Amino acid sequence: MTLADRWLLPDGVDESLPVQAERIENLRRTLLDLHHSWGYQLVIPPLLEYLDSLLTGAGSDLENETFKVIDQLSGRMMGIRADFTSQVARIDAHCLKGESIQRLCYCGSVLRTVPSGLDGTRSPIQLGAELYGHGGVESDIEILSLMIETLSVAGIGSPVLDLGHVDIVRDLMSVCDLTDLQRETISEFYKTKDLPELNRFVASLGLSEEQSGWLNLLPRLCGDESVLEKARFALSGISKKIDAAINELQLVKKTISLRFPSVRFHFDLSDLVSYNYHTGLVFAAYLPGQGNAIARGGRYNNIGEVFGRSRPATGFSTDLKTLVMLSDFAISKNKVVLAPAGNDISLWDVVSKLRSEGFKVVQALEGEVPTVEVDFELVCVKGDWQTVAANL
Amino acid sequence: MTLADRWLLPDGVDESLPVQAERIENLRRTLLDLHHSWGYQLVIPPLLEYLDSLLTGAGSDLENETFKVIDQLSGRMMGIRADFTSQVARIDAHCLKGESIQRLCYCGSVLRTVPSGLDGTRSPIQLGAELYGHGGVESDIEILSLMIETLSVAGIGSPVLDLGHVDIVRDLMSVCDLTDLQRETISEFYKTKDLPELNRFVASLGLSEEQSGWLNLLPRLCGDESVLEKARFALSGISKKIDAAINELQLVKKTISLRFPSVRFHFDLSDLVSYNYHTGLVFAAYLPGQGNAIARGGRYNNIGEVFGRSRPATGFSTDLKTLVMLSDFAISKNKVVLAPAGNDISLWDVVSKLRSEGFKVVQALEGEVPTVEVDFELVCVKGDWQTVAANL
Repeated sequence: MTLADRWLLPDGVDESLPVQAERIENLRRTLLDLHHSWGYQLVIPPLLEYLDSLLTGAGSDLENETFKVIDQLSGRMMGIRADFTSQVARIDAHCLKGESIQRLCYCGSVLRTVPSGLDGTRSPIQLGAELYGHGGVESDIEILSLMIETLSVAGIGSPVLDLGHVDIVRDLMSVCDLTDLQRETISEFYKTKDLPELNRFVASLGLSEEQSGWLNLLPRLCGDESVLEKARFALSGISKKIDAAINELQLVKKTISLRFPSVRFHFDLSDLVSYNYHTGLVFAAYLPGQGNAIARGGRYNNIGEVFGRSRPATGFSTDLKTLVMLSDFAISKNKVVLAPAGNDISLWDVVSKLRSEGFKVVQALEGEVPTVEVDFELVCVKGDWQTVAANL
Repeated sequence: MTLADRWLLPDGVDESLPVQAERIENLRRTLLDLHHSWGYQLVIPPLLEYLDSLLTGAGSDLENETFKVIDQLSGRMMGIRADFTSQVARIDAHCLKGESIQRLCYCGSVLRTVPSGLDGTRSPIQLGAELYGHGGVESDIEILSLMIETLSVAGIGSPVLDLGHVDIVRDLMSVCDLTDLQRETISEFYKTKDLPELNRFVASLGLSEEQSGWLNLLPRLCGDESVLEKARFALSGISKKIDAAINELQLVKKTISLRFPSVRFHFDLSDLVSYNYHTGLVFAAYLPGQGNAIARGGRYNNIGEVFGRSRPATGFSTDLKTLVMLSDFAISKNKVVLAPAGNDISLWDVVSKLRSEGFKVVQALEGEVPTVEVDFELVCVKGDWQTVAANL
């Protein structure tokens, strides 16, 4: 093995050196404080769990992305978490009793076997929030507002917000009485936006002309807010669920526009791709011209069912490293004092005092040439320690 | 699989719920700020690396404790870090050029295949500091002082400090010209303090009476500071290295006593057990009556050699979860304001302002019964939003 081999990090795995690490740490604190100020309580789920728990419910999509190891104590398979959502669901279901609403937030590393996201990472630092126990659109609005506020505080003020509602496409398919295979095939055409093939396939199903029209129209309901009016015109009255979904989208759009005037909207009523375990309003934030979402979330009711507690839930998550890469989030600058070498206890006392007052004090070691920029030097004048402006 | 199975966490793996998680987060910030104020710069090494890098040098002892996974992108073996030291050594060797002194700190999760430490954990949150590029005892004193200060800030003010120096036993064995096997055997007797067997074994080696005396004496050089005088009396003049080691121990003891009068000392000059990769002064902090160290460190020169850069180095580490378990580190209390439900933009503006001013504002959702203790309620009086003391 050569030296260069030992230096090499695996693809999609990175480390953060001093300046970058400090920016991540500062952003982490600022965002957790933001979530705290909204009443969200921090939880720290474990980095690894039994695979059975990790891949249950919301986690079942993550099987391929999860690193697996054998527990030599129990012989059972464990997984390194690839996502927080099913862990937080387990905590809500198992550890936090009562029917009250729970607002939880988290921040930590996850690992994935394959690269994903804007920078092709396999080791994001995920930060997110989850709201359990409330099924109304108000909680969707709360989580969505918190997501936009999170981006804004991180220095990303004008994202494009992708809004959808999985009830519309799912209920339309139910109304048309499609089989699972037919649903999958149509979802695939929606995903690839292959409209000619979609039309041919829908025509082969023997549906009424009206039903065929709905299924063919759906992928065209994609674009700015005018989509909502088109949807209301074309899909009103098909089912209560679809009417309610369109109303929810309209209310969300209206409220978020008032709160965050700089946010632009994009609607896609046939999008199901990224939202396998979701059950209602879904959303993702993009930067113009970039294909991967920088934050993503939505409603996923009943996720805790496999843990014995079925509750409405909505949440979002983002990646700290991506946010730091995209923003100019500043790092705080403490004044730097250079203290001379020595074990003198009066020097120690002065240095300790300066540190407790917020200075960064580097005590020189024998022969040390300071590499940091020094603002002050600590010097002994007639037996008295004094800070003087550094003469660089 | 039953519900209870899905709830179960693996042995030695735990999660932190709201109050506990907040205490850990607060302690984390306070300690990283402390390290920052000493001039230590944060680095964030990756959670997983190629096994070749991870188990090189200081990491070679960790083979059995490291979870291993296969990188499906490269086909190579990777490991989840079980310790930070070799990662930080790689960063110093590879990423941070120049011969200047580097002060680095870190905080993050590590995973171990087998339980260890005070609470038998396999998932500690390790926090530590490393100082590269200085070989003098001043840097040992700096790192040791930072370790004690770290414990003190965490609320653990009077630890017992275990001090040793691996040069003494190693150089004594060299002077006696022992083979590797003989060294291992004697180390094992030192570890178990099996003095009769030690005496028998030493007698069988055909050494001079003086040399046998030294080897038999060493495990008895164990106890309070009087050990240092005994060592000076019995071992002076054997080699320059041993003399220097005893002098270093004496200077460290004297300086630390002045800086931290409440720290008690314990010396053990034959202890090699926990310090396989160390090369000089070694130390560990204990609480009275407990068998596992709560923080540990020492000198490990040349650790970066396998990465192409051999430098003197010293450092320490501790586990945040252990510290939180042992201390009463307080959590900060923000005043809680309960805001009524509603999408009114004037309400949003008032809530945002209160949050930015440091209040924790929970906006009620339709039907929500607040479970947190509320200090103020936000009410609308004649079109004007006002905070009034909560009437509980």
